[in-house]
Amino acid sequence: MAEKGVDFQIATEYPWERSDALMDMNRAGQTPVLTGERVAPIPDSMAICEYFEETVEKVPLMGSGPAARAEVRRLTAWFDQKFYAEAVNLLLAERMYKRIVLKAPPDSAALRVAAKGVAQHLDYLEYLLGERRWLAGSSFSLADIAAVAQLSVADYLSGVDWRGFPDTKTWYATVKSRRSVRALLPERMQGLSPPAHYDKLDF
Amino acid sequence: MAEKGVDFQIATEYPWERSDALMDMNRAGQTPVLTGERVAPIPDSMAICEYFEETVEKVPLMGSGPAARAEVRRLTAWFDQKFYAEAVNLLLAERMYKRIVLKAPPDSAALRVAAKGVAQHLDYLEYLLGERRWLAGSSFSLADIAAVAQLSVADYLSGVDWRGFPDTKTWYATVKSRRSVRALLPERMQGLSPPAHYDKLDF
Repeated sequence: MAEKGVDFQIATEYPWERSDALMDMNRAGQTPVLTGERVAPIPDSMAICEYFEETVEKVPLMGSGPAARAEVRRLTAWFDQKFYAEAVNLLLAERMYKRIVLKAPPDSAALRVAAKGVAQHLDYLEYLLGERRWLAGSSFSLADIAAVAQLSVADYLSGVDWRGFPDTKTWYATVKSRRSVRALLPERMQGLSPPAHYDKLDF
Repeated sequence: MAEKGVDFQIATEYPWERSDALMDMNRAGQTPVLTGERVAPIPDSMAICEYFEETVEKVPLMGSGPAARAEVRRLTAWFDQKFYAEAVNLLLAERMYKRIVLKAPPDSAALRVAAKGVAQHLDYLEYLLGERRWLAGSSFSLADIAAVAQLSVADYLSGVDWRGFPDTKTWYATVKSRRSVRALLPERMQGLSPPAHYDKLDF
């Protein structure tokens, strides 16, 4: 939304609490949900992004033409769903949910699976960025946003070993320095500190 | 694609075989992938559907206006992702993959979890259809297609108990009788028969 120039406020919801407010807006009980004065609540991050792509056309974030948009959508789904399931969700379960909610130590076998998942996805990012300036092609797009959204959570949870992925590291530093992303780096999970390099633009 | 009036052929790929042909088209190793003479391979079912919505405008399947499209997209993601993960994927693992690939019996505890997942989603369908003619509103849309795609697989695998969901059953019978869906009902999974009611339009 910052990239699109849309003003917004973030309200925190913990999906595991399944608050009435969240369940009324989204029976799936998942975040994010978009609410506003002019629109009924819209759940689902992709539905929200497509909504802004249609309603705030002056800053296109999905490329131009059906084939380019297909590439952006494919990669966005990749990071939102596949990278999340194979890496970020495991890190969140072991390093965030267990610590904050269950007060239990992480499982080292699960962390190894997460580390392998992160490494495989960094391999793919490195491959894409060997041929492209941005993930979906020559323009910054929703695919970069989706990738950074997932990757920054993994990095916050000390889940990313950047060694051996120079193109991905450069791309990540570049995206980090955008005003939209920089504004999010000071945010902290309650009771859980990120590694020292997390919010450094030059890491 | 049949609803859009687009000619197509289906080629079978078993994702667990990770064939070179599939991996070359989609590094995620997932089906479906769209290929054609005029377009590079497009993976991801939602990216494919958005592609046809943009390129074959004469049969709109996502409603009109950004808010209506958001509702279609939210529900499509619900069935593609949530219903799949909480019900259909479990049925596929227990009743299809174990039988055809592993030659092992299904796990009854997992089947109970799947049955509970299906029942919860039928509850939601019944709620939606109590207020709407079609899932996303007054028009047949991609949300109906996504729901039927998942539900018909669950039904094929004897995973749906229709009792107590009259509005959903009527809606399902109506969608089943569309030419696009009827054409798919004779298809069979190799070595695995559906229940007798599966391809009956009046069940």
